[in-house]
Amino acid sequence: MNPNWWQNPARTPDAAAGERARARQQQLTKPRGSLGRLEQLAIDLAALQGRERPGVEAPWIAIFAGDHGVAAEGVSPYPQAVTGQMLRNFAAGGAAIAVLARQLGAELELIDLGCAVPLDPPIAGLRQLHLGPGTANFVEAPAMTEAQLHGALEAGRDSVTRALAAGAQLYIGGEMGIANTTAASALACALLDCPLAALVGPGTGLDAAGVARKATVIERAVALHGGHAGEPLELLRRLGGFEIAALAGAYLACAQQGLAALVDGFICSVAALLAVRLNPSCRDWLLFAHRGAEPGHRHVLEALAAEPLLELGLRLGEGSGAALAVPLLQLACRLHGEMATFAEAAVADAGR
Amino acid sequence: MNPNWWQNPARTPDAAAGERARARQQQLTKPRGSLGRLEQLAIDLAALQGRERPGVEAPWIAIFAGDHGVAAEGVSPYPQAVTGQMLRNFAAGGAAIAVLARQLGAELELIDLGCAVPLDPPIAGLRQLHLGPGTANFVEAPAMTEAQLHGALEAGRDSVTRALAAGAQLYIGGEMGIANTTAASALACALLDCPLAALVGPGTGLDAAGVARKATVIERAVALHGGHAGEPLELLRRLGGFEIAALAGAYLACAQQGLAALVDGFICSVAALLAVRLNPSCRDWLLFAHRGAEPGHRHVLEALAAEPLLELGLRLGEGSGAALAVPLLQLACRLHGEMATFAEAAVADAGR
Repeated sequence: MNPNWWQNPARTPDAAAGERARARQQQLTKPRGSLGRLEQLAIDLAALQGRERPGVEAPWIAIFAGDHGVAAEGVSPYPQAVTGQMLRNFAAGGAAIAVLARQLGAELELIDLGCAVPLDPPIAGLRQLHLGPGTANFVEAPAMTEAQLHGALEAGRDSVTRALAAGAQLYIGGEMGIANTTAASALACALLDCPLAALVGPGTGLDAAGVARKATVIERAVALHGGHAGEPLELLRRLGGFEIAALAGAYLACAQQGLAALVDGFICSVAALLAVRLNPSCRDWLLFAHRGAEPGHRHVLEALAAEPLLELGLRLGEGSGAALAVPLLQLACRLHGEMATFAEAAVADAGR
Repeated sequence: MNPNWWQNPARTPDAAAGERARARQQQLTKPRGSLGRLEQLAIDLAALQGRERPGVEAPWIAIFAGDHGVAAEGVSPYPQAVTGQMLRNFAAGGAAIAVLARQLGAELELIDLGCAVPLDPPIAGLRQLHLGPGTANFVEAPAMTEAQLHGALEAGRDSVTRALAAGAQLYIGGEMGIANTTAASALACALLDCPLAALVGPGTGLDAAGVARKATVIERAVALHGGHAGEPLELLRRLGGFEIAALAGAYLACAQQGLAALVDGFICSVAALLAVRLNPSCRDWLLFAHRGAEPGHRHVLEALAAEPLLELGLRLGEGSGAALAVPLLQLACRLHGEMATFAEAAVADAGR
């Protein structure tokens, strides 16, 4: 296997299937275009799935968890133990994404890439890769070693391989990691031509003083590592987190293996931006679920030319915003696949 | 029964249940506020349903159909026969709302209030009230007689009574009627302090010349009937349609009988505005599903201080936009009802 597997080209969407889907949309018993964005969504999914009538009845949700050394700088109101505690809550079914996965009938895969606090007792069903006890504090040193970075990217790729083997029709990546909006903001700041102040926000709940402290921490980190701005892989190693690298690896693998990915919030969108910078051919395979409350999200989405489906003021992560958008994809596919044509229903078309 | 039944006060939402729901939201294993608008949605539904953990597993969808005399002015690209043809398509399961209702497991009730073209052969399962062969052309005369107006309002009320008897937890009204964006735009123009040009749009697919013609027609209608701007009931009689009056009646009855209503697009929102003008106490019971593509919709929503959940460029009607938002309401309730609290999951809360 090519050690730089993420550079392999993405699969090409099936333009012919997309065109058949577009022709079908024109025949359905509704004014043309009246289903708005759901029409193009069905057409896009048709091209990605290579069939005129796509479906997303079997979504796969993978949550990647990892701790961040930069938490030592006081950038989150939550202690690091919460990363592992929330993994336990995901497994027990009490977290938001667990409720959503159950309701959607989605597979929920949990992957621990490295928590700072040992998980005691062990969590049943959890995949443990443990690349380290969290990343290094990136205001002092690169967050990850080369081995950790590659291990995290591969963890994402391997999750996609499992999803496809299980027959998944849609891939959702989620994340958990105390302080990970700090890492994502630092990456966005280094990747985008956008002032720091526009990218840094409260994350899961900092007050104004906390946001100011977080901005100072990010400023230090970007000063230390920003010289690598043109090298997305090196930036990811220096400023990323295990779960952010895994998400980037998953999005790249989705594109290479031909599985549509539905991107969640700010942190996932930064991972998607890294994936696109690492390999622009993956962009076609990324759908965007929502625009969240974190101010940087808007800028990252703009850089990706992404127009998400929902805007509900979410700032939870865990893949929850993507899960909330799944019914829209499913209903778009049902409408596309099951509505009658003008001819079938003997309904007069406009001006005929 | 009071002949002016729509003036009866709305039921008062259960503030105590809402407060219990708000307290519960604060304890769930997520940063406070991180579920954005879904948190307040669950709290609002708790107050409307009078229970700490609400649910909307049983939605009821009623489609009101009626023709419009103003169609004679060439304001729609579709012939009037389409109103009845689409009723047949709803019943046969091939229309968008039929697909959505099936997928949601929602009851779909079809009510013909007066088509211009006889329905031959009859449509099985259709409720036929037939208040007339469509309304009168309102550029020449009032659209409805007093008897027709009251019949239409009562048709909406009676639908809500059936929904409650069947155990519905959410009411969705939809409409079908060729030329009904012209009626809705004329009503909005008479009700709002907003220039005609900002309210008139392509409806289901007029070109620019068609929109200009439609604007002229509406201008004539408002010149003829606009003197009644302060009398919402009389305006509804003069510029409305059977289905618009029925929707207004349904929203008023929902509020009086204690059933949350999810308002669909432009035409339904105009009906909701009329309901609120007729009886402001009904406002609490109206939830708004989406902001559609018709330019007037934005202004009507603003007048109602409504912030809808979705914005997908829809312009179909039939209740379809409301149906598309149902999963968000359902998932908001599931998250609210099923997530673990910090104490239950032994997760550390912020700053503790």
